[in-house]
Amino acid sequence: MRETSLRRVYAPVVTPFKPNLEVDLLSFQEHCKWLVDQGAGLAIFGTNSEANSISPHERSQALRALLDAGINPKNIMVGSGTCSIPETVQLTREAVENHCEGALILPPYFYKNISDDGLYDYFARVIDAVGSDELRIYLYHIPQFTGVPITPGVVERLLKSYPKIIAGIKDSSGDWSNTEQFLSRFPGIDIFPSSEALLEKALPLGAAGCISATANVQPKAIASAIGAYGTTAYPQRQRTISAVRKVVQDYPMVGALKRIVAQRTGEKTWAAVRPPLTPLQDEPAGRLMRELAAAGFQGA
Amino acid sequence: MRETSLRRVYAPVVTPFKPNLEVDLLSFQEHCKWLVDQGAGLAIFGTNSEANSISPHERSQALRALLDAGINPKNIMVGSGTCSIPETVQLTREAVENHCEGALILPPYFYKNISDDGLYDYFARVIDAVGSDELRIYLYHIPQFTGVPITPGVVERLLKSYPKIIAGIKDSSGDWSNTEQFLSRFPGIDIFPSSEALLEKALPLGAAGCISATANVQPKAIASAIGAYGTTAYPQRQRTISAVRKVVQDYPMVGALKRIVAQRTGEKTWAAVRPPLTPLQDEPAGRLMRELAAAGFQGA
Repeated sequence: MRETSLRRVYAPVVTPFKPNLEVDLLSFQEHCKWLVDQGAGLAIFGTNSEANSISPHERSQALRALLDAGINPKNIMVGSGTCSIPETVQLTREAVENHCEGALILPPYFYKNISDDGLYDYFARVIDAVGSDELRIYLYHIPQFTGVPITPGVVERLLKSYPKIIAGIKDSSGDWSNTEQFLSRFPGIDIFPSSEALLEKALPLGAAGCISATANVQPKAIASAIGAYGTTAYPQRQRTISAVRKVVQDYPMVGALKRIVAQRTGEKTWAAVRPPLTPLQDEPAGRLMRELAAAGFQGA
Repeated sequence: MRETSLRRVYAPVVTPFKPNLEVDLLSFQEHCKWLVDQGAGLAIFGTNSEANSISPHERSQALRALLDAGINPKNIMVGSGTCSIPETVQLTREAVENHCEGALILPPYFYKNISDDGLYDYFARVIDAVGSDELRIYLYHIPQFTGVPITPGVVERLLKSYPKIIAGIKDSSGDWSNTEQFLSRFPGIDIFPSSEALLEKALPLGAAGCISATANVQPKAIASAIGAYGTTAYPQRQRTISAVRKVVQDYPMVGALKRIVAQRTGEKTWAAVRPPLTPLQDEPAGRLMRELAAAGFQGA
């Protein structure tokens, strides 16, 4: 259950790689510290983090690096969903043992045409195996990647069985009618749309904020728009963050975000992605920067 | 490159679980020994093995169990594809180090709309990282689950770069025109359709046999149909195996196969599956057995 009405923005943190494509832990620490300083929470190991291209072992090391850097685990939501129960349990347990704010869990995404019974049972077994009252789960609904929607029926059953553990939903479907349904049916938990452009429609209905890829590049602007909600300063701030979002989402997201971070930090290696993704090339990257400037993007 | 014209059948081996859903290594050894005795090769850790519901660590233990049971690694094709390069490299390397017949590799299946460049680069990096001339890769095309088709363009580029390493394709698309295209464009490698019912069309075009889920339950019948190809005994044998296949494929495949193995071995725990899959219930299982008997299924 939501214990606070604080609204917030999380960045699904992009993951930097060295030229040999190993995770660059130093750059990861620095980007995360910067995001927290700018007022964003960290949703590490999400889709735009290339989490599924990173092994569980590498994810453990990267989480450890953030804690070693002195980042408060209460600022960290850990993406811990894999296709298998044992791996999901291991990663979720790690989030709990390190007192992270929560675990953001994908449904198992290999099989298709999964029944509600099977999906409920998957989450229930993960929760039972982790076996901690401190566990807080955010369900990660992104059917265009997983092919496995987290249906309202499954959410309802999980909430009934585990009212304290099911803390929220990240709705990355991009389907507003679905987000609206989550907001109206589950007012007791945190519902996060996946784009700051949706805040305008979602905040009046009780959304908890957003978990948005583009929070990697405009965290402060999003946080200050959320902070101004209900005041006369809000509309203009919302317009600016929506305009920036609109520019970036026309590009392949991960490649584009990494190019923008590379520009901010001056570290060119930030542009690297792991296959099967491909980096954004120079020509579209140049166009992206020009369009961002025209949209009023300030650099953060 | 194919060095033999021997045609063969592989069973994508179903994986038994104990009541607590741990992998049941003893039952796994026994089922695999039985399959080999019946004339089938073992394609372990495929879709119908629930491989994606089993952690890499559990997969290593299960492979080790087969080798400990004295099964010739040349009878084993190891499913080693995950979404991440490090894990795929680790599992593939294990197959090579244990002198297995080959590695059956899924494309990374989380992201969608993957470019041919990105997919080629993924496989190339895996091959380069494993770094062994003994590596033999079978590409696993099953777009209805992965959302990432292995296109003829990618196969062509991989064959050009790694002519000795790319050994074949398992085409589980169920799209005959695609199988036909693979057979005609890549005559130098082993093309396996995913159903014994397709042997009739595929063998005349040079297919290497089949890797079929239902080989878990009728391995000998499939092997003897393949063995009789070109003789007067073939048509009747083909009709029988196709009829059995037709019955089973109307049921949820993994649940149905496990029920049939449970019946053969007398071990009821064989019926267990890992969530998000659900076991086949008693009523449809009873119907399945009656339909199988009517189709002439002999029990093996």
